[in-house]
Amino acid sequence: MTNFADRIVAACQEKNSIVCVGIDPRLEFLPDSLLSAALEKHGHSLEAASAAYAEFGQMVIDAVAKYAVAVKVQSAFFEMVGPAGMVACRQVVKHAQAAGLVAISDVKRSDIGTTAQAYADGFLGEMTVGDDALLPWGVDAVTVSPYLGSDGIVPFVNAAKAHHGGLFVLVKTSNKSSGELQDLVADGRPVYEHVAQWVADNAEGLMGTWGYSALGAVVGATYPEQLRTLRALMPKTLLLIPGYGAQGGGPAEAKPGLNPDGLGAVVNASRSIIYAFRDETWAADNPHAHWTDAVRDAARTMRDDLNEVRP
Amino acid sequence: MTNFADRIVAACQEKNSIVCVGIDPRLEFLPDSLLSAALEKHGHSLEAASAAYAEFGQMVIDAVAKYAVAVKVQSAFFEMVGPAGMVACRQVVKHAQAAGLVAISDVKRSDIGTTAQAYADGFLGEMTVGDDALLPWGVDAVTVSPYLGSDGIVPFVNAAKAHHGGLFVLVKTSNKSSGELQDLVADGRPVYEHVAQWVADNAEGLMGTWGYSALGAVVGATYPEQLRTLRALMPKTLLLIPGYGAQGGGPAEAKPGLNPDGLGAVVNASRSIIYAFRDETWAADNPHAHWTDAVRDAARTMRDDLNEVRP
Repeated sequence: MTNFADRIVAACQEKNSIVCVGIDPRLEFLPDSLLSAALEKHGHSLEAASAAYAEFGQMVIDAVAKYAVAVKVQSAFFEMVGPAGMVACRQVVKHAQAAGLVAISDVKRSDIGTTAQAYADGFLGEMTVGDDALLPWGVDAVTVSPYLGSDGIVPFVNAAKAHHGGLFVLVKTSNKSSGELQDLVADGRPVYEHVAQWVADNAEGLMGTWGYSALGAVVGATYPEQLRTLRALMPKTLLLIPGYGAQGGGPAEAKPGLNPDGLGAVVNASRSIIYAFRDETWAADNPHAHWTDAVRDAARTMRDDLNEVRP
Repeated sequence: MTNFADRIVAACQEKNSIVCVGIDPRLEFLPDSLLSAALEKHGHSLEAASAAYAEFGQMVIDAVAKYAVAVKVQSAFFEMVGPAGMVACRQVVKHAQAAGLVAISDVKRSDIGTTAQAYADGFLGEMTVGDDALLPWGVDAVTVSPYLGSDGIVPFVNAAKAHHGGLFVLVKTSNKSSGELQDLVADGRPVYEHVAQWVADNAEGLMGTWGYSALGAVVGATYPEQLRTLRALMPKTLLLIPGYGAQGGGPAEAKPGLNPDGLGAVVNASRSIIYAFRDETWAADNPHAHWTDAVRDAARTMRDDLNEVRP
């Protein structure tokens, strides 16, 4: 096993891509045929939703595997389906890894030390039952919230070290109200810079051979100015940049997240890729195409658009 | 259905208790007999851990139901078991509710608006599949992290309103490093007071008939001075006070969280109650007792100790 940051860098080089695709299944947006089949098989049940999400996620993965280096599986949409949804979530992660993609679980977890350890072991590590070490989730990386301070983050760092995983600490999130707390200025700098400083100061512990750390950070493409500042403040930190596409960020907004080597970040789009088939223009132009063709085209276009601005 | 805060207040009056018991199952701490039975039935598997957690949680609930008003189910320990663990988590929640306890799911979730909505609907509300509205988790309340600002919290407020649930926003957490971010001073007050102010300002939207809001807050008993300040800043907010027992807080530390009416808070202890049977003194004094007797006694003692300091 290789350091997580090295795996990301190698994938970016090999595929000439910095694209991460967000798997955000929503029942109301699924292709009709897929949903109908699940309802027919499982009735109007949470199991039907789970089955539909698993199939949708896997088909999206197959469509984008050539153009993306990673998927960001949004836990919320699977959790919305209850325990049944978690089975689908696990299936999607496995499928992504089998397709050669890095699986990032977007869980934004955090808790006090011993409890954070349970999350870290569960997502990135193992659980020992009797004498057997088992893999509860087996994801490659998770997102982590910093509100509880370092003792809520360090267990993830330790688990990442032990199991060659990664983590992305929320620094500056892509949503509209992110500034309410993150932009508060304390000791002459915004809260998000305090978090970024901690991430930068602890990069060495998970450093890969390409000069990037598996202790990463989330910075939204919707705040390009802050992205530029944070890139400079955390030069060796792998960035996960959400907010591309439906949230309004484009190649120009994501560019400040890249280092002069054209690396150091993966850019995530969810809705604009996985629901590309719902675009009326595309549907009108491609009356006989399969919905996954739209997903594939959107991922390829995103890759190309980002490569145009990569140094 | 009644407002969540009203349900908590009514339970506190009826049981003369402000005790919340944290369900934090850990394989290494379970009673030997219970673990052995699960391993025998399910082998060395995650299903064995799940079955053991479900049984342990349910037996703890039966032991404490007379003395506690609520349970705080710590999602991390169930998630550590993978998808199988989530089935146990759901069972424990159902069992608590059947035993007349309020079920708080300690998930510390937060995300950007539309994604936070998925969490809120999943935990507090419903998911519509076909024409049927189904209950994915059916918990009474959740804990919510404030790092993403109000648009990560409002969806939970709305779901709580629609489904008579509650939420507890993390304000000042009980862990050692909580001050690293939460105590940063911006505009003359610490970050946790900024969060508290938002909670206080939005209390009306979920106000119950007893004068308490179902938009609650988490403040640790390990920081009694801050607890006093925050009680005053959020007079109508229902507080969830962790950090009692194993983390070092006692009745004196929890007291500042109570209003003059003796209400306004539930105090949570996890390890000191659910693993009371592991105390060597208790084991030596009660060689023929069942492990649940120790759990029951610990819950009763906690109730009595807290009632001594209640106004």
